[in-house]
Amino acid sequence: MDNNKYNSPLPLKRIEITDHFWKQELNLVRKEIIPYQWKALNDQIPDASPSYCIRNFKVAGRLNEERKRLGDAFVEPSYTYPGFEVLPEDPKDLKEQFYGFVFQDSDLYKWIEAVAYSLEQHPDQELQKTAEGAIDLIVNAQQEDGYLNTYYIINGKNKAFTNLRDHHELYCFGHLAEAAVAYHQATGDHKLLKVTERFAECIAAWFGKEEGKCKGYPGHEIAEMALVRLYEATGNETYLNLSSFFIDERGTSPYYFDKEHPESVKKGQEGKIRYEYHQAHMPVRKQKEAVGHAVRGGYLYSGMADAARCLKDQTLYDACKQLWNSIVNKKMYITGGIGGTHIGEAFSFNYDLPNDTAYTETCASISLMFFARRMLQINPESRYADVMELALYNTVLSGMALDGKSFFYVNPLEVFPEACHKDERKTHVKTVRQKWFGCACCPPNLARLLSSIGHYAYTESEDTLFIHLYIGGIIEKNVNGKTAQINIHSTLPWNGEVGIKIQGTGEVFTLAIRIPMWGNEYELIGAGNAKRAERKGYLYLTKSWEKDEEVKLHFPMKIRRLEANPLVRETIGKIAIMRGPIVYCMEEVDNGKNLHLLCLNNNGTGETVERKIAGTTMTSIQMDGFRQIISQEEEATLYHETWEEQKEAVKLSFVPYYAWANRGENEMQVWVRKA
Amino acid sequence: MDNNKYNSPLPLKRIEITDHFWKQELNLVRKEIIPYQWKALNDQIPDASPSYCIRNFKVAGRLNEERKRLGDAFVEPSYTYPGFEVLPEDPKDLKEQFYGFVFQDSDLYKWIEAVAYSLEQHPDQELQKTAEGAIDLIVNAQQEDGYLNTYYIINGKNKAFTNLRDHHELYCFGHLAEAAVAYHQATGDHKLLKVTERFAECIAAWFGKEEGKCKGYPGHEIAEMALVRLYEATGNETYLNLSSFFIDERGTSPYYFDKEHPESVKKGQEGKIRYEYHQAHMPVRKQKEAVGHAVRGGYLYSGMADAARCLKDQTLYDACKQLWNSIVNKKMYITGGIGGTHIGEAFSFNYDLPNDTAYTETCASISLMFFARRMLQINPESRYADVMELALYNTVLSGMALDGKSFFYVNPLEVFPEACHKDERKTHVKTVRQKWFGCACCPPNLARLLSSIGHYAYTESEDTLFIHLYIGGIIEKNVNGKTAQINIHSTLPWNGEVGIKIQGTGEVFTLAIRIPMWGNEYELIGAGNAKRAERKGYLYLTKSWEKDEEVKLHFPMKIRRLEANPLVRETIGKIAIMRGPIVYCMEEVDNGKNLHLLCLNNNGTGETVERKIAGTTMTSIQMDGFRQIISQEEEATLYHETWEEQKEAVKLSFVPYYAWANRGENEMQVWVRKA
Repeated sequence: MDNNKYNSPLPLKRIEITDHFWKQELNLVRKEIIPYQWKALNDQIPDASPSYCIRNFKVAGRLNEERKRLGDAFVEPSYTYPGFEVLPEDPKDLKEQFYGFVFQDSDLYKWIEAVAYSLEQHPDQELQKTAEGAIDLIVNAQQEDGYLNTYYIINGKNKAFTNLRDHHELYCFGHLAEAAVAYHQATGDHKLLKVTERFAECIAAWFGKEEGKCKGYPGHEIAEMALVRLYEATGNETYLNLSSFFIDERGTSPYYFDKEHPESVKKGQEGKIRYEYHQAHMPVRKQKEAVGHAVRGGYLYSGMADAARCLKDQTLYDACKQLWNSIVNKKMYITGGIGGTHIGEAFSFNYDLPNDTAYTETCASISLMFFARRMLQINPESRYADVMELALYNTVLSGMALDGKSFFYVNPLEVFPEACHKDERKTHVKTVRQKWFGCACCPPNLARLLSSIGHYAYTESEDTLFIHLYIGGIIEKNVNGKTAQINIHSTLPWNGEVGIKIQGTGEVFTLAIRIPMWGNEYELIGAGNAKRAERKGYLYLTKSWEKDEEVKLHFPMKIRRLEANPLVRETIGKIAIMRGPIVYCMEEVDNGKNLHLLCLNNNGTGETVERKIAGTTMTSIQMDGFRQIISQEEEATLYHETWEEQKEAVKLSFVPYYAWANRGENEMQVWVRKA
Repeated sequence: MDNNKYNSPLPLKRIEITDHFWKQELNLVRKEIIPYQWKALNDQIPDASPSYCIRNFKVAGRLNEERKRLGDAFVEPSYTYPGFEVLPEDPKDLKEQFYGFVFQDSDLYKWIEAVAYSLEQHPDQELQKTAEGAIDLIVNAQQEDGYLNTYYIINGKNKAFTNLRDHHELYCFGHLAEAAVAYHQATGDHKLLKVTERFAECIAAWFGKEEGKCKGYPGHEIAEMALVRLYEATGNETYLNLSSFFIDERGTSPYYFDKEHPESVKKGQEGKIRYEYHQAHMPVRKQKEAVGHAVRGGYLYSGMADAARCLKDQTLYDACKQLWNSIVNKKMYITGGIGGTHIGEAFSFNYDLPNDTAYTETCASISLMFFARRMLQINPESRYADVMELALYNTVLSGMALDGKSFFYVNPLEVFPEACHKDERKTHVKTVRQKWFGCACCPPNLARLLSSIGHYAYTESEDTLFIHLYIGGIIEKNVNGKTAQINIHSTLPWNGEVGIKIQGTGEVFTLAIRIPMWGNEYELIGAGNAKRAERKGYLYLTKSWEKDEEVKLHFPMKIRRLEANPLVRETIGKIAIMRGPIVYCMEEVDNGKNLHLLCLNNNGTGETVERKIAGTTMTSIQMDGFRQIISQEEEATLYHETWEEQKEAVKLSFVPYYAWANRGENEMQVWVRKA
């Protein structure tokens, strides 16, 4: 590890996203999702199940007031387990208690984080006022000792930190910290950051390697990376040490979760079985295979990469690389989706990537982007950015309807609606996006990811600006106290033309431009007297940049046919179509019923067609193929002796995977049989 | 329906199975399974979980004695629900109570039925004495009013017949009746038949269309067909009427099971959802699609066919035909397996026939044979016999190891052992057969089916002997008071030569010989002056048969390549290999790892090879094919642009499906990709 080379995301203030494609997405977040989610948090969406999130904060705040008013006469609530999700018997008859999932607080934090990124790029007084009101609710709910989790505050703080495995307190803290740092960076306001630091101190007083402190760690990871972020924002090493403690303690034997849950320790069951789900089955440095709940995994690995970078911890970094390779070489869908099984929403075993029962949660691909960006910070290799791009343009975007109003948790690669309705093994696979969920992790996670997309597109070190994703934007790069402006114009993902205009100040710095896996036959125009170097998939252009300079790139946008490693049983004999970073799929609405009857010709090129889907213009693809015809004889029986297949030549119509299910319920298929 | 043409199975006494192939199987039943199961019923198998079956009868008997001894002072046990399966806390510390599944009684009945068939063909004094001892236990357990179910006798008869949906009392009765008729026919002994008739009268007094009687019907069907059998054995129409009542009442609205289980009636849930599992979602005559638990379905449809025949009920027969077609044209595996999903051990939706998660229970294929034989009795069409044969030679036989010592419940068409161990969706799929099950339905069901195989191979009407399956045997056919002997010699399933020697008496009768679907290019030799006719897949040879006549048949045993209806998504682009009635499969032990990498050549014939598997000689098949080679580049990554597939020519080795998993745990695949 060479920390001189570390790079970091730029403050969003120094980035203006001007990209045609992404501006649409960001506008959806700003104009649709953020206002919608605020309503959802306040239980104001008529058709959706209430969140109770804001309500819980208010109830906790009122309890605090009562406590102050009554002093010693106040009787603290004493904890009895109300259930993982608590709903009122009659929604009209709400009591002064906690409702919703135990992790409901995190939804507000995710919303504030998204708001922060939005405000940083689009100041909006009214939105800021709303956010400040929400922050005040959080302030009011916080306890005198810094503790802050409405579930335990309302149900009985005497049991705080006693069920780390299942109860998400430290998870909620992590989201609080992410929100607080983002909000502080966006607005300069310290209020939420202070709340967070007080809670962090409270946690640091409870947990740690010092004798007498609790040796637990989060059941659902995120605090690990959030604490590093809090450390980087404040410089307070307590937080970095606490993150490091959580990471190092995780999965050590005897298992902390066994101590916490003696009832669940069964004879003959290894910790491997009990805690793989939580990535707590062995010390993290020994973990070579990505296992368990995929979102938890992605968050942990991201935190490990952060800690490895800040602590220059080579063994931890080595573990990150191993886990990265495990995911990317054995457990990732071609769409950048992860989590092959809905049982535990988890990584399945190596090469087990079923298309129709996939879990591939939107949040899991977001977590993979987190992990990728962090690996890029340590070591800019384009293979990390390739995966980040793949996840972003496919599974992450698929998580949201084109109108920003409905969402997928699960992003399968093949859907046969009848099976989703009639086969209980596929009930997790929805055929159309849904409005809002009781467990609403994906929509707000999408909001915070998309509204901070600049953090993933570009990073910088002192003398280098990295362009990881070809997203159009205007970036300010400070070099030797002077500010150069880099204006990227990109026609991606539909075309391969990228123009980079530099308003330099005569200072020497480097533009590090990623060469995508799919575009390594690129053409470079301009950059005349720059020193050129290519390293690990990045093109480094170094010179003293003057005024009005321009570099142009042309990436070939050819239609590519991809195959999976033959060990992937589900895709043997099948092909997937990509163009640039976009994975394509066939939908019934374009190709008729029974997509499995369609085959791709072995040769025959495709052609691109610009078209509108649900009002959005995009590039679709037509390929030569054929449809197997079902003869009358075949239709009448189940089995028959083989005969010459009857087939008709057809044009197979492909649309971007992320745009599927925007035209009603229908069949969808990414992998197509080859003839 | 033309009842002059109805045909019936012959008494096993008039059949001697001499077939080389089937004698082996019957010997296994007689020498291995029946003694083994007796030990299992008596909890004497060291490694297997105890059955408690015999023990329950003894406990119930002791209760009866106590009742007689104490008279009015006896306190009847009062029912409280002990659970669907009750196990002792410590097996050493057994109490005077009921243990095992609520349907545990049926295991003894199934054993007695198998014993009866065995005794009928192979008298065995010692075995008969053991059976009589067992029957005495049953006699002792029966209540004065005829009631007989140890679960309720021990736990509290006050709740008898109050949970028909879940508690299998009428199911146990059905197996009792099957056993009693079989035992009576085999030995002439009336004891068990009397017990059964007393219980049947008790049931008939409780249930029926008369006012005041209970309008319930069995949650798990079998009583329907068993009552018809009891009627046919005794001539008592009460039993036929009771069967008819159960059939007619089933699925009528308001649902009886709703009344019984008001707690499970949920708003907005149609009876369709609640009772499809039990085939009680609509009146049986309206059922056009086979749904729900496959064994239950097969038993119900068999009972419907029996009742339709005895009552000359055309609408009921029409429903049987519809349901038959639903199964055979849309829901049956090529192995004659039924039940596409383990969820509810049930039929899945049309054309949903997954190979690796199939349930395809051994018992379900047995039930399909029951149904087929009954359809043949009404109308001898070879399509019924084709399916009966398919189920028998493939899924039914697969249920048992070649040494008769271990059993499959689930008979998948594709197994990748790692998936069965690591994918919770496949935990029902075992990779090797198991010794004995707590819920031991399949092994004793296999025993009773195989030991009465003559009931399926041949049936007769007054003037016709039907040969449905080419199983070698010597059959006595009575015509006009004289007895002709028909001696069938068959080289099936490995060769296609069948010789039928007739020792006639000069009387005119018809030999009705099935022409199998796979052998319609047969050759007939002999039968000189017989009147010949071919109808619905049967060849009818009518003449006055004299002494020492012979008819020979030659069926071509070519290797056949089969395809499924293209609407079966799981088998698109794949081929299955059959020869005669035998479905073949590839195993890892013969073909190496990763069977999915193997393809069959589009042309190129196969060759048969005689070989031994686990000590048994059978015909295996070699076919030309190739193996996809995984290049180093492919191995290093998950996805790559397509290139020319690297492949090597290999001989694919196929063994009979029923013989798979007799050489340790390994991959198996029925359907092979075509090149």
